[in-house]
Amino acid sequence: MAKRVKNIAVLTSGGDAPGMNAAIRAVVRACSYYEVNCFGVYKGYEGLIDNDFTQLNARSVRNIINKGGTFLKSARSKEFRTKDGRQKAYVNLKENSIDALIVIGGDGSFTGALKLSEEFDFPVVGIPGTIDNDINGTDYTIGYDTALNTVVEAIDKIRDTASSHNRLFLIEVMGRDAGDIALNSGIGAGAEEILIPEEDMGVDRLIDSLKKSEKSGKTSSIIVVAEGDKSGKNIFELGEYVKEKLDGYDVRVSVLGHIQRGGSPSCFDRVLASKLGVGAVEALLEGLQDVMIGIVHKNVTTVPLKTALSKRIHKHDRLIKVADITSV
Amino acid sequence: MAKRVKNIAVLTSGGDAPGMNAAIRAVVRACSYYEVNCFGVYKGYEGLIDNDFTQLNARSVRNIINKGGTFLKSARSKEFRTKDGRQKAYVNLKENSIDALIVIGGDGSFTGALKLSEEFDFPVVGIPGTIDNDINGTDYTIGYDTALNTVVEAIDKIRDTASSHNRLFLIEVMGRDAGDIALNSGIGAGAEEILIPEEDMGVDRLIDSLKKSEKSGKTSSIIVVAEGDKSGKNIFELGEYVKEKLDGYDVRVSVLGHIQRGGSPSCFDRVLASKLGVGAVEALLEGLQDVMIGIVHKNVTTVPLKTALSKRIHKHDRLIKVADITSV
Amino acid sequence: MAKRVKNIAVLTSGGDAPGMNAAIRAVVRACSYYEVNCFGVYKGYEGLIDNDFTQLNARSVRNIINKGGTFLKSARSKEFRTKDGRQKAYVNLKENSIDALIVIGGDGSFTGALKLSEEFDFPVVGIPGTIDNDINGTDYTIGYDTALNTVVEAIDKIRDTASSHNRLFLIEVMGRDAGDIALNSGIGAGAEEILIPEEDMGVDRLIDSLKKSEKSGKTSSIIVVAEGDKSGKNIFELGEYVKEKLDGYDVRVSVLGHIQRGGSPSCFDRVLASKLGVGAVEALLEGLQDVMIGIVHKNVTTVPLKTALSKRIHKHDRLIKVADITSV
Amino acid sequence: MAKRVKNIAVLTSGGDAPGMNAAIRAVVRACSYYEVNCFGVYKGYEGLIDNDFTQLNARSVRNIINKGGTFLKSARSKEFRTKDGRQKAYVNLKENSIDALIVIGGDGSFTGALKLSEEFDFPVVGIPGTIDNDINGTDYTIGYDTALNTVVEAIDKIRDTASSHNRLFLIEVMGRDAGDIALNSGIGAGAEEILIPEEDMGVDRLIDSLKKSEKSGKTSSIIVVAEGDKSGKNIFELGEYVKEKLDGYDVRVSVLGHIQRGGSPSCFDRVLASKLGVGAVEALLEGLQDVMIGIVHKNVTTVPLKTALSKRIHKHDRLIKVADITSV
Repeated sequence: MAKRVKNIAVLTSGGDAPGMNAAIRAVVRACSYYEVNCFGVYKGYEGLIDNDFTQLNARSVRNIINKGGTFLKSARSKEFRTKDGRQKAYVNLKENSIDALIVIGGDGSFTGALKLSEEFDFPVVGIPGTIDNDINGTDYTIGYDTALNTVVEAIDKIRDTASSHNRLFLIEVMGRDAGDIALNSGIGAGAEEILIPEEDMGVDRLIDSLKKSEKSGKTSSIIVVAEGDKSGKNIFELGEYVKEKLDGYDVRVSVLGHIQRGGSPSCFDRVLASKLGVGAVEALLEGLQDVMIGIVHKNVTTVPLKTALSKRIHKHDRLIKVADITSV
Repeated sequence: MAKRVKNIAVLTSGGDAPGMNAAIRAVVRACSYYEVNCFGVYKGYEGLIDNDFTQLNARSVRNIINKGGTFLKSARSKEFRTKDGRQKAYVNLKENSIDALIVIGGDGSFTGALKLSEEFDFPVVGIPGTIDNDINGTDYTIGYDTALNTVVEAIDKIRDTASSHNRLFLIEVMGRDAGDIALNSGIGAGAEEILIPEEDMGVDRLIDSLKKSEKSGKTSSIIVVAEGDKSGKNIFELGEYVKEKLDGYDVRVSVLGHIQRGGSPSCFDRVLASKLGVGAVEALLEGLQDVMIGIVHKNVTTVPLKTALSKRIHKHDRLIKVADITSV
Repeated sequence: MAKRVKNIAVLTSGGDAPGMNAAIRAVVRACSYYEVNCFGVYKGYEGLIDNDFTQLNARSVRNIINKGGTFLKSARSKEFRTKDGRQKAYVNLKENSIDALIVIGGDGSFTGALKLSEEFDFPVVGIPGTIDNDINGTDYTIGYDTALNTVVEAIDKIRDTASSHNRLFLIEVMGRDAGDIALNSGIGAGAEEILIPEEDMGVDRLIDSLKKSEKSGKTSSIIVVAEGDKSGKNIFELGEYVKEKLDGYDVRVSVLGHIQRGGSPSCFDRVLASKLGVGAVEALLEGLQDVMIGIVHKNVTTVPLKTALSKRIHKHDRLIKVADITSV
Repeated sequence: MAKRVKNIAVLTSGGDAPGMNAAIRAVVRACSYYEVNCFGVYKGYEGLIDNDFTQLNARSVRNIINKGGTFLKSARSKEFRTKDGRQKAYVNLKENSIDALIVIGGDGSFTGALKLSEEFDFPVVGIPGTIDNDINGTDYTIGYDTALNTVVEAIDKIRDTASSHNRLFLIEVMGRDAGDIALNSGIGAGAEEILIPEEDMGVDRLIDSLKKSEKSGKTSSIIVVAEGDKSGKNIFELGEYVKEKLDGYDVRVSVLGHIQRGGSPSCFDRVLASKLGVGAVEALLEGLQDVMIGIVHKNVTTVPLKTALSKRIHKHDRLIKVADITSV
């Protein structure tokens, strides 16, 4: 049986996501509740290597549940990808008497966590924090719901000007490998077409479809395009191509970019982060390690980090059909 | 086997909820997709009785996915609660050659729908649209997620002034029988205490808890109170009581009221409404009747209306614990 | 000529308003720019009396421009209204070597500031920070524009549910003596009627007008009522009265309350606060005292505090006419 | 004296702006109030040429005050720039018995209006509707205040991720010739540097300044860049250049784009649009023509269209100083 955990460290790593602060807060307060010491590590794995720790108590995390970003800061650490870097990190963890580490981040961050655990038998628990919702073993990742709202609000604004001017807009949203943001925000914003990384609809089918809806009298259109779409063209090239093929439309391109990572988290993300943060501390106290805390059908669950890192099987078929039907 | 459905009517009933327009849109477009005629009925069951029908096509529902309220309007019909009223409604449905009715609303609306079905063997499908999230057989109701965000944004604003002035605020949110809004928004807004209809925490325990947190140095506090809380006092009486018992706080009361019913729906509610609207039409085409379309673990499902109307067993224990821990 | 100011103190007093943090930030950074020391005083005049000062530098005010409330906290101090209280405050100011005081607040706060100045010849400059916009000598007060947007967004939400249900809503907004919020938010939200403190329209004229618009087919209505309206009834009594007199409407009352004081400030308020904060420091460096910094036709100006405290002559006639015309 | 105006047409032209609907609504309701017929023209000058008129009454403009865009649609008409096009427009105006035309738009739209007036002695009144705030003779244009809030909210979101990651962001905002959006949103968002079309600060001075603030310990930075800035580089080139010259920063570029044109108008823009819409109708009834209705120090005023079209003398000096001081 694992020895009783007395000192827990927490860090945020990789791309930041709204709700990370809420997750840190929940970790800190759960530590306080269960009478465990909690230490924040600044700048993700960089801070582990640079020995940048600070003790946190229930008060340290006041008034942050509604703030975007992460007050512990985040980073992508090259050094931690080396054995040498991880060795330094381990030494610092030991020096600070840390018994276990909670990592809030995405798959890149979990890969690092798993290595630390495997190489040094150091207990690690992951909390899925990424706007992309691309982690296996959890229905939702922290930040995803907020990003969807940000995208939909932005497209609502663009729709105002699109329909005032009878324009066609190509709007790029985040998602290099996962179409979750594009598909859900596309349905939510009433987009006419949605291009995702998981399916290659073919540019020519897009053109055909736009021609058809042009004939049916549609004068403005919104096409949502995930970063990682399979058209083989970047969004500006795609815009040029559509312009060439379609006379009737005035074509514009908009890249939503980094606004998708920020903003005050939605209630959904705050509650999710609170549940997962508490769950992570409880998992460590129960002696679990090398697991990710996830949410499956509203219940907090744990899966091995290895499972979390394995390829997620997307189940977009139903949503794609809903998108097709409602964009008639 | 049920005969092929050719004409579907749709109405919204009871308290309106953000996302009802998105649900109507999905119903209409699914009808269009499956080549069924779709008719909107104005003002809920009132319109059935008054024969207030209008044919809808894919174009009729343009640019409404992002609008709060319901363009078909809603009402609570006294006449429909009488057998006579339902008889009139049935005659009008027949006169308009309607084969099936989709009702978007809450439990009161479903009760009426079930009666219509039982008395006249008329096919009815329900879509759960209410901000209260108090329907059995679905994880989420349409409008609930938006209401949570509205509440959390309002409390964030009140928190600004509460902490500037070291005040204690009692904030009333909707929920006569269900604590879902209070509990989730309370966690999301970082409330110090949450009073819900399902649990009687006792006013004196509240006072004790506030005294303790006052001693621990907390100078401002947010108490979220569901309409139907079990304190036996209305929110203003509760405010007076707290004021009496606690010297250190400047106590204020805020009733959030009807802002919770309005607003542009969140992405979550728009997607949910789109899925359920399509699902309702497909259910009718498959010959189902007297069912509610719900969402269970991200999948569209059907349950008998009777089940939807039976008492929901709340599972708030885990959330109550998360609230306790994170509000330390 | 006044001696060179070397140490400036700043405080926020009275009801908090969005943009107060932006104003503090501008004061602090202007001090830094002009190489003056800046001290923050906590909890308004209470902090002066309790000797609760803290030195602030450019860094102390990072990341607060977008935050509602005031990080220096605010209060209404009874003790400062006594000569004795002000004596204590003066002693503390001297002890801390403060040469001048900047007070961000409303008329109550300026009254206190003026007394301090008159009794002890202590240089004071006021910055108008109140959502009510009721200060003489400035076109706008800090927080007013944000409050207008908060009110209009809330009424937009209520309008969704009002028009879905054919309801009449009485909505109470802030403004005990000034109708600025009611009048501007009422026009902005498309209210059918607006009741303000400066004009007694008479309840019966209201009823007549509602009857007329009911006849003309209006089925839902929004009446915006300032706290200090002259109907002689509170909003709930007014609601009962309207309900009695008008059969056709389902009447509801909503009190917007403290959400109007909070929230992230609008761009307008942030820029206004930045201009006035810089202006206050510059005024002190120019040897001015007992003045309020205001904005008149986009230009930063100064008026004697006495003038700021004299009764503002409202010029609502044109707006009342615009309201009448556009609510046809 | 001009003959009594009986039939007024109104159109929106050029880039759309939030609040245009509110302005149309005010024009229509003022016509109703003064018992003048009002006709809407679709798609700006295109609709004049294509004879696309529709009569509007007080009811036609219900529930649009809070909607972005313009329900009359807008366009940039090439044909109207020809004498022949304007001849067609004039014939259609006469055929529809229109006595006067109200044009809501920017300088391009006013140029067309003035030509129509000069060539055919047809009474025209302009209402400044553009997010750029670049029209002479009015303090504010409709849509500008909303665009500022949109920009500031977007930058607040980007700031979350910028400070979580210690990044430098170059953010492009609208403004080809006018720095109003960049300057005000830059101050409002607490930007470290602001590049505007009216001043050439020199790229090297920018680099110097960034180096200085890097040394002072600033780890994240926001640079707001107007489209028409004078650096001689587009935003992506500028990003590359900064990246080259500054090692310490992780540099990113974000182009806010068309979200700036959309969205529900702010209260300020709704009230402004209401005042100007009413003012335009009253001006025509008073026999004025070839004027623009503007707002100067809160009062509705008129200036000759020629004046409105003359070069605006920007008065940014004070704001530039405020930006310098507060971004210390």
